[in-house]
Amino acid sequence: MNVTQASVLEKFEAPLRLREFPLPTHLEPGAALVRTEMAGICGTDVHLWKGELPISLPVILGHETVGRIEQLGEGLERDWTGQPLRAGDRITWNSATSCGHCYYCAEKRQPTRCAERRAYGIGYRCDQPPHLLGGYAKFHYLRPRTHIFKLPDDLPTESVIGAGCALITAIHGIERTGIVWRDNVVVQGAGPVGISALAVAKASGAAQVIVIGGPKHRLEMAKRFGADHTIDINAVRDPAARISAIRELTGSHGADVVLECVGIPSAVVEGMEMCRDGGKYLILGHYCDGGTVSFNPHVVTRKQLQIFGSWSSEPRHMKAAIEFLRAHRRDFPFDAMVTHRFPLDQANEALSTTAQWDSAKTVLIPNA
Amino acid sequence: MNVTQASVLEKFEAPLRLREFPLPTHLEPGAALVRTEMAGICGTDVHLWKGELPISLPVILGHETVGRIEQLGEGLERDWTGQPLRAGDRITWNSATSCGHCYYCAEKRQPTRCAERRAYGIGYRCDQPPHLLGGYAKFHYLRPRTHIFKLPDDLPTESVIGAGCALITAIHGIERTGIVWRDNVVVQGAGPVGISALAVAKASGAAQVIVIGGPKHRLEMAKRFGADHTIDINAVRDPAARISAIRELTGSHGADVVLECVGIPSAVVEGMEMCRDGGKYLILGHYCDGGTVSFNPHVVTRKQLQIFGSWSSEPRHMKAAIEFLRAHRRDFPFDAMVTHRFPLDQANEALSTTAQWDSAKTVLIPNA
Amino acid sequence: MNVTQASVLEKFEAPLRLREFPLPTHLEPGAALVRTEMAGICGTDVHLWKGELPISLPVILGHETVGRIEQLGEGLERDWTGQPLRAGDRITWNSATSCGHCYYCAEKRQPTRCAERRAYGIGYRCDQPPHLLGGYAKFHYLRPRTHIFKLPDDLPTESVIGAGCALITAIHGIERTGIVWRDNVVVQGAGPVGISALAVAKASGAAQVIVIGGPKHRLEMAKRFGADHTIDINAVRDPAARISAIRELTGSHGADVVLECVGIPSAVVEGMEMCRDGGKYLILGHYCDGGTVSFNPHVVTRKQLQIFGSWSSEPRHMKAAIEFLRAHRRDFPFDAMVTHRFPLDQANEALSTTAQWDSAKTVLIPNA
Amino acid sequence: MNVTQASVLEKFEAPLRLREFPLPTHLEPGAALVRTEMAGICGTDVHLWKGELPISLPVILGHETVGRIEQLGEGLERDWTGQPLRAGDRITWNSATSCGHCYYCAEKRQPTRCAERRAYGIGYRCDQPPHLLGGYAKFHYLRPRTHIFKLPDDLPTESVIGAGCALITAIHGIERTGIVWRDNVVVQGAGPVGISALAVAKASGAAQVIVIGGPKHRLEMAKRFGADHTIDINAVRDPAARISAIRELTGSHGADVVLECVGIPSAVVEGMEMCRDGGKYLILGHYCDGGTVSFNPHVVTRKQLQIFGSWSSEPRHMKAAIEFLRAHRRDFPFDAMVTHRFPLDQANEALSTTAQWDSAKTVLIPNA
Repeated sequence: MNVTQASVLEKFEAPLRLREFPLPTHLEPGAALVRTEMAGICGTDVHLWKGELPISLPVILGHETVGRIEQLGEGLERDWTGQPLRAGDRITWNSATSCGHCYYCAEKRQPTRCAERRAYGIGYRCDQPPHLLGGYAKFHYLRPRTHIFKLPDDLPTESVIGAGCALITAIHGIERTGIVWRDNVVVQGAGPVGISALAVAKASGAAQVIVIGGPKHRLEMAKRFGADHTIDINAVRDPAARISAIRELTGSHGADVVLECVGIPSAVVEGMEMCRDGGKYLILGHYCDGGTVSFNPHVVTRKQLQIFGSWSSEPRHMKAAIEFLRAHRRDFPFDAMVTHRFPLDQANEALSTTAQWDSAKTVLIPNA
Repeated sequence: MNVTQASVLEKFEAPLRLREFPLPTHLEPGAALVRTEMAGICGTDVHLWKGELPISLPVILGHETVGRIEQLGEGLERDWTGQPLRAGDRITWNSATSCGHCYYCAEKRQPTRCAERRAYGIGYRCDQPPHLLGGYAKFHYLRPRTHIFKLPDDLPTESVIGAGCALITAIHGIERTGIVWRDNVVVQGAGPVGISALAVAKASGAAQVIVIGGPKHRLEMAKRFGADHTIDINAVRDPAARISAIRELTGSHGADVVLECVGIPSAVVEGMEMCRDGGKYLILGHYCDGGTVSFNPHVVTRKQLQIFGSWSSEPRHMKAAIEFLRAHRRDFPFDAMVTHRFPLDQANEALSTTAQWDSAKTVLIPNA
Repeated sequence: MNVTQASVLEKFEAPLRLREFPLPTHLEPGAALVRTEMAGICGTDVHLWKGELPISLPVILGHETVGRIEQLGEGLERDWTGQPLRAGDRITWNSATSCGHCYYCAEKRQPTRCAERRAYGIGYRCDQPPHLLGGYAKFHYLRPRTHIFKLPDDLPTESVIGAGCALITAIHGIERTGIVWRDNVVVQGAGPVGISALAVAKASGAAQVIVIGGPKHRLEMAKRFGADHTIDINAVRDPAARISAIRELTGSHGADVVLECVGIPSAVVEGMEMCRDGGKYLILGHYCDGGTVSFNPHVVTRKQLQIFGSWSSEPRHMKAAIEFLRAHRRDFPFDAMVTHRFPLDQANEALSTTAQWDSAKTVLIPNA
Repeated sequence: MNVTQASVLEKFEAPLRLREFPLPTHLEPGAALVRTEMAGICGTDVHLWKGELPISLPVILGHETVGRIEQLGEGLERDWTGQPLRAGDRITWNSATSCGHCYYCAEKRQPTRCAERRAYGIGYRCDQPPHLLGGYAKFHYLRPRTHIFKLPDDLPTESVIGAGCALITAIHGIERTGIVWRDNVVVQGAGPVGISALAVAKASGAAQVIVIGGPKHRLEMAKRFGADHTIDINAVRDPAARISAIRELTGSHGADVVLECVGIPSAVVEGMEMCRDGGKYLILGHYCDGGTVSFNPHVVTRKQLQIFGSWSSEPRHMKAAIEFLRAHRRDFPFDAMVTHRFPLDQANEALSTTAQWDSAKTVLIPNA
């Protein structure tokens, strides 16, 4: 058990390679070693693979992970919520950690903008110890100060990975935007972030949630999650027609809140027109740089819009997500999002399934 | 006294024409007839003259006006604040009135987006009675339900017109955005809206206000109004250099709040980069459609921005403006903004002075 | 049809008397005459009967009413939402109307504190024309500017009166307080206001709602409306034990939001202790003056509480209530609240049923 | 230099005793040893001396301190804002530190309610090493993780101690309450917290600030700090008369915001009546348990009040305070607050000067 395997991104747009790494022989105080149970393939992983974010290679991808504790470093005794941790416990964790005391963390309370943040599966090279800092691997090393969450026994791993980083991202974004009881809400996008935003909007008491997206299997998933209406972008191909459809469904005024969860710049210009005057617009899907769009600022002035951005999430959003997943399994079946599973040596197949929007959520089972 | 004069926009981009109109012989209940004392030339008038807003001609321009009551219609006894009104009183008024009970007025509390709103000097044709519904005229007719404000004796007409619709627009926009004690604030633009935004930002306790604009005489006015720093766009011509300058003045982070008061689309993209992460951006200057700009929504997500639009103003902003002008004449010398005065028959000269940014504020004295 | 009947409060704490009144022969422009279909007995009516609010007698009680339009005054063509009105339409209305332009209405946007507000069934004497300004009557006169709402055919009158003024009061109060998705909420009181607050809290995405109150039949109603836990004040008689129970149900911290819906001063002191530090407390039940309680302000400082008051409601809350009742009849069966019905000549029996907390909601059927 | 002195509270209501303590021979990593330059006597120290807060004796009082670094523990290289620290630097620090990761710190973002918080001068016994954890001493030990702030050379020590914990408390409280440009503000109390609240309210753009308090020398200080009006509680002894005076000064409506800075329970009931309907009330002065008052919750419902509590402060408030003190020395002369100075062996005299409200601010110069 001295050597283990991980799937490595060595070169942008080239196949991931299965590589061997030494298992750590000694853990730092506060660190942990985890045997990976399931690793989610996030849409961001596709963007990383294409080189659309400026990261340093080689990297073990994977920032949505559930595993069981193999070994605990000295002093690591409790999870983020105060529960005791023991070997064998099933856990998940925030992929990134903020410093807690810098200008953004402490003075402006924007910890997701901390300059020291680095995320597992994105920001750590794997050619240096402790190597195992991504989810596409049989083992995962958790550095000291990682925010760990012990999972309750009645919450399936599929729920946690089905929700993935999409749910915590949506929780944060909607917290910043504010959905009030009885709001008319539009969600642009039916991928994991869109489905998560739909779930949080419904649970926040939205009068109706209209989901715009595709392909069909995703809109059917949106209906399972309670979408009051769906608009298929493959059927209604003209943005003006989609805007009209939203107007019709909202008493001619437009929606109180529109949540952008697609990452395509033109969706932003379209989405602002879907807001009622004085309404709110969340730009949540542009984690990667998707380029520019021709935009008229007069729209923002004339419609008196409020527009919000939101980046990543804080540990408290993970706590909320876990409680929410556990309380609402029937209404919001995130476990059913996991439609495609692959072993570690088929990581490339997994990635391409995600890239082609064939799945709701694709996962790796590294120790299958 | 049966006939009076007004300066009329009959055709876009053609000279205004001095025309005669009958004085009303009878006032509707709740209406008033006012002898114009001073009428401001607003930058919007230049845009109207160019045909950049979809209005129906002929129109008497002028939506910033002070006059003395000539005659009061039946039942009009008090101004908006409850003070008694009498012939001879010096007054100003909101150029537009909302209905008070529609979806935007009553349900969503966005009265400036009321569908029934029409503004004096913009939205009324003058070829139909009561004709006199704009400020570029010797007399002004106030329709029933106009929000009238009696002016205190110790507040010069120059202060009211120097502030004009710019101040109430800025008050509304900053109310929506929220400036908190100790915020670092950037104002893009040194015209009347920019100067007004500067004044309100300073009075709201901003730690520093940096004004970006030109030409020189406007930046000097900004300094008189308390700007902590000014950046001359004619001297610092590269947007990247201006962004760097803001970073340097704000401890490398960017400003907490950036207020756009120019109306040029590229300023919006530049201004967002001047915000610190998690900062606020107000798009206030785009009252007219100034066209599009190439915009990257990734910036909003990554920087976690909050962006606000604001349209026109409500009567309570006029009340605040009048009290503010009266209380702070020394710190914020809005009367000194009135740098150019013209009689009614030189309305075209007045308009072109404004168009060329030669003045701080140009006014007409119709009964000079 | 020249004379009609109403039940009149002539003297505090004396039986209501059935009196005859002339039907109006002519309606003012904007007014309406309504044939009463159902009139709710509100807990406030009991307080009014006891003389606990300073009103001028004689009064026809009843401020929660549904009726059918008998006649429309000139110019009254649409309801508050813009729907056309015709004789025979089933409608409800706000019992009070604000002026729309005073200090509280327009400047401070607190229209429920308008000095000109008077409520049907409370603030109008019936010994002067048009007499019929309360719900305990066969006909009701609606003065010009009353906010009227046409009821959709699929919404039973029982739902509207079962919700009564309690629901719109709760909607306003919770709007002011803000319940956020996943909040732990406590409702003090299981009467109509408490049940309404429970419904809105559940619909707003509360993680759990705990209702404290009695008697048993009301707590059972609370469970039908989705209460996650109930605490019977007749079983848990010690306030300290109730506070401990809340702590246990909220992970030892206390609730994020506590909603007071009882009107007993000691409940306020108890309720603040049920809040977590930094939590929110709404004092909603003290519409009448219930006297004083011994209160320690140190609690507010130390616990960093936010405390809110809320008075009556605005028309937009009525619109929200009607939409909410229609959309959620299954989850929140307000029609089932109507447990006791009486004809007009048994108004005293109806009032005493309400006074003794025997009913969920008692109503009059004046034209039965 | 192996032994040093401090003034010790050994028994409630008994004179402080000058005691000797060993100077630490070795500093923990991250700790610091400071030579005390000035220590403020806070009103809370008087309450502590009387035994009104449940603390464990013996204690070296003093939680407002400026000193010079004598020695730095390993790894302590920068202050809270990132500035380098060196021996000889003049610094101040937050008296308390929160853990940063508990329910209140991280999940609910109420770090001042962290269960692990203990404050220098209040929460540490001095009969255990490192002993020197209060300001009434020649040397002060700073434990690891203390939030240290290097003072700029142009900011006098008198400004920092004159402001003391009062200013940071006021900044936090007003942040929670929100003062908006043009608000009418009342401050109840003219002690250090009241004066600080006045300064922040003025700097936040209040239309007027009215200070209620005494004795005369404190009201004169209030005028130096820009109070628009003062009401002497020794001259206007009837609360109803004070409420009337506030109404008169605020156009009959009451104030938009009332800030309680006295700590006397009856002031809270009085202060709520000074608010306009829909106004805001901050209970800031009740850091200690001052007992109860007879309170009518109907007032909160009827007036639609918002009431806030605020406890202690966070490091970012100290940063704001230091910048504010430095920028506004002329308008807000906090250095002039230091009216009484005593050497360490006259700590009892210093305490009694504060107890009797003889001073604006009394300080100790321990190394005089």
